[in-house]
Amino acid sequence: MSKQELPLINAAAVDPGACCAPLLCEPLGAAEAGELAPLFKAIGDPVRLRLLSLIACHEGGEACVCDLTSAFDLSAPTISHHLKVLKQAGLIDSERRGTRVYYWINPGVLARLSAILGSRQGAGMVSA
Amino acid sequence: MSKQELPLINAAAVDPGACCAPLLCEPLGAAEAGELAPLFKAIGDPVRLRLLSLIACHEGGEACVCDLTSAFDLSAPTISHHLKVLKQAGLIDSERRGTRVYYWINPGVLARLSAILGSRQGAGMVSA
Repeated sequence: MSKQELPLINAAAVDPGACCAPLLCEPLGAAEAGELAPLFKAIGDPVRLRLLSLIACHEGGEACVCDLTSAFDLSAPTISHHLKVLKQAGLIDSERRGTRVYYWINPGVLARLSAILGSRQGAGMVSA
Repeated sequence: MSKQELPLINAAAVDPGACCAPLLCEPLGAAEAGELAPLFKAIGDPVRLRLLSLIACHEGGEACVCDLTSAFDLSAPTISHHLKVLKQAGLIDSERRGTRVYYWINPGVLARLSAILGSRQGAGMVSA
């Protein structure tokens, strides 16, 4: 089907004012999609999404496994596994201090994911 | 470990100016995480991420399977499967017209995901 034949009935389905989000402005290339998809996949799990939030909101912006387990009905090794997935994706970073490993989020990576999906300062699609 | 004992060495790891993103301001609850995670999981695949972008950027903001297959080395049924996953997650919607099904994105859902991760109009963490 050529572009000429495409019905335009739903032309208003996408808010024209929203068109500043990279995803909505020009088709995402295979390379960028291949780079971004694993990041979204990593947060596509309720435990990991909450872990990310718990770490970011924890005092000082960092937390160890022992600070996180009480929020879940999960064992420390399971929490550690999810933290490992988040770290491998680059969403969090960590540092061992003594017997404990402390985790903090990588705000730049989250900002990139946020920007690719929509809103940007002052002219996002949040109002859509 | 009590909060009092937590070292604050990485207090600057999270940009204080970034704290307007829901994920970073207060711990995400289990219910909301359970609702959001499947959406992130749905876009946690390079083909689906590109499909979302291709649909949004297509003329008129909508596309049928025949408009999308040329971008991939995948069969039409495989593309249709990925579209079904995106639709079930609520990221896109569709309508049959004659023999073809047309798809368009749900900008409100993308905006919600963007907002939860970070940037908001005028005061996001994009600058982080």
